[in-house]
Amino acid sequence: MNAIMNNSVFERIKALRGQSGSHSPSVATILKEIPEIKLEIDACFLSNPYATDLFLEHLDQDLVRTGKLRDVLEYYPPQNRDVGKHISRAINVSPENIFVGNGAIEVIQAVLHSFVGGKLCVIIPTFSSYYEFVMPGTEVVFYKLKKESTFRFDAEDYLSFIRDNKVDSAVIINPNNPDGGYINRETLEHLLRNMGGLANVILDESFVDFAYEDEALSRVSLQGYINRYPNLTIIKSMSKDFGIAGIRAGYGIMAEDRVRRLLSNGYLWNVSGLADYFFRLYGDPGFLELYETARKKYIRHTIDFIGELSKRKGLKVYPSKANFALLELPAGTSSFDFSMRLLIEKGIYVRDCSDKIGLDGQFVRIASRTAEQNRRITDALGQD
Amino acid sequence: MNAIMNNSVFERIKALRGQSGSHSPSVATILKEIPEIKLEIDACFLSNPYATDLFLEHLDQDLVRTGKLRDVLEYYPPQNRDVGKHISRAINVSPENIFVGNGAIEVIQAVLHSFVGGKLCVIIPTFSSYYEFVMPGTEVVFYKLKKESTFRFDAEDYLSFIRDNKVDSAVIINPNNPDGGYINRETLEHLLRNMGGLANVILDESFVDFAYEDEALSRVSLQGYINRYPNLTIIKSMSKDFGIAGIRAGYGIMAEDRVRRLLSNGYLWNVSGLADYFFRLYGDPGFLELYETARKKYIRHTIDFIGELSKRKGLKVYPSKANFALLELPAGTSSFDFSMRLLIEKGIYVRDCSDKIGLDGQFVRIASRTAEQNRRITDALGQD
Repeated sequence: MNAIMNNSVFERIKALRGQSGSHSPSVATILKEIPEIKLEIDACFLSNPYATDLFLEHLDQDLVRTGKLRDVLEYYPPQNRDVGKHISRAINVSPENIFVGNGAIEVIQAVLHSFVGGKLCVIIPTFSSYYEFVMPGTEVVFYKLKKESTFRFDAEDYLSFIRDNKVDSAVIINPNNPDGGYINRETLEHLLRNMGGLANVILDESFVDFAYEDEALSRVSLQGYINRYPNLTIIKSMSKDFGIAGIRAGYGIMAEDRVRRLLSNGYLWNVSGLADYFFRLYGDPGFLELYETARKKYIRHTIDFIGELSKRKGLKVYPSKANFALLELPAGTSSFDFSMRLLIEKGIYVRDCSDKIGLDGQFVRIASRTAEQNRRITDALGQD
Repeated sequence: MNAIMNNSVFERIKALRGQSGSHSPSVATILKEIPEIKLEIDACFLSNPYATDLFLEHLDQDLVRTGKLRDVLEYYPPQNRDVGKHISRAINVSPENIFVGNGAIEVIQAVLHSFVGGKLCVIIPTFSSYYEFVMPGTEVVFYKLKKESTFRFDAEDYLSFIRDNKVDSAVIINPNNPDGGYINRETLEHLLRNMGGLANVILDESFVDFAYEDEALSRVSLQGYINRYPNLTIIKSMSKDFGIAGIRAGYGIMAEDRVRRLLSNGYLWNVSGLADYFFRLYGDPGFLELYETARKKYIRHTIDFIGELSKRKGLKVYPSKANFALLELPAGTSSFDFSMRLLIEKGIYVRDCSDKIGLDGQFVRIASRTAEQNRRITDALGQD
């Protein structure tokens, strides 16, 4: 498109924004209403595309070619407890501690609705469901990460805040969304030891497969700690690691009595046939070995990508061990304008973070995609 | 298998039953533990197999052959409200009144957990989740349909019971599961007019597509009544009508403020990509026309099947307008033994109803399948 057409399209997007209230219009709405825009790279979407390829190869071989896809769609899937057994094999945690969710979001909702009351501490910037899904009566207190300290988490400062504010429950997302900041295992252990008085410590590890502490990029997770801390709940989305958001698959790891309580009056048939198929793969060591290769390849490409982004003039890139980076734009640049111009002119969609509470300034979040797409993104953002 | 082998297999099933507590072992467990048993017809499973064929043809054409299946599995599906718009087109009810569920069971759970307290009246025999999923503190009172009156529903007797027991909420499944008894529209209107003082009237229409009041087998549903009765919630499973239980698709129709309340702190991304695809088909008049043909064909075959079952000596078949029939076995015949013998000897699996509360005697429930499978079932049950 030429510059004049681009400007006209941009004005139409601004009009759409005016209609959709305080939030930006969704990319689906934009693409539907303004068909001139061609989406080429969805760099808002946080997933490992190599893992999606791997899953789809298995699906094709196991279900599509054999005709078994019919069974998966026609019949009732197994109950929650039975699906949990596959997850148990994958992560070496007792099935009694596993609650399977229709996406991690169902686990978040179930935990917030069933076990969380009083004061809940949420670290901002964050994933908004953690404060939007609380029950009426739950008070949310925000602990703010500071831009000046590159959103780095300070354990002692946080523990003081928890004590001073007499909070009952706390959410920690690690790595955090939207900045990608990572709290290492040693610090987390220190936190858990000092948060024993809380009713809940909710640790969201949805992006943890992209984090690492050694050169071999070994997986890091606190899932094995579940029996040491009865107030700990670990939340895990499969959408990011495995690139299968449409299937809706996630799980929570929590004390046995909490799983029992949730399953005592609900959630028996909340896993679809395809999610059950996915979890059967997840419990298969052969599949997990292939996944490890895809995971490490993606992390290496992501490290390269974030390194390249850091070289772009005028963009401040915050430290990330997730599969995305938070970018601060130069003063005076609107993140809405920036993201929409990138979409119109280059077909690249990034997340405008202007609706994120706790971010002072103009930020966008950019996801790492395939190596080739990442190159196109860094090219679009200008030379270093 | 010969008779001696059959007896040995039967003893092994009885041993399995001993291990699994008060409930019968699931058919999946039986088939896994005793591989000699070959399941040929699952007549426990309540769905229209012709509708499954229809759905799978569309899926193959729209998603599998085009490669678009990847998009449906990889990306986040639309939010609850957006999926509701497709349903709105299909049933001519405002999207503001539609709450989409991960299967009807999620809607049942959400309604029981969010809007039902005090005394809940459940008609028995019934689908057990209606009393198992209530919140602690909700008292369930059972209104029992009488075998002597062929489980026929008596509206005046029921209304007296509701009044005398001062119930706050009531569940009516129409047609009822497991007997298939149907309450006609006129009686339901009379009930709704006289139940205005209740907090909730939950009408489960999951089997209503198999019911009819005229010779043309026109669809019957009270979905259009939603705005007349603010205490009415209609629950609809897609698993039975469309034969897609593995996809987990259902919805509730309820007052706008209830939908808003449920979506205010949850349920935003509870619909999978495949369920969204299904609901898009559901909102397409061309697909619905093809479905109507499959629905009527299946009802006709079901009427024939229940007629044939009624001719079998020694079996009492209760009146049904659902896609199954409740059969009472001769005195002294165990329903467990009967169903397991049928499975071992003929590969036909029917539902042993011995765990159903409110059934005095020995009952099995038999689902209508394809015309050819139905013939094999009636043949297996002996000559008329």
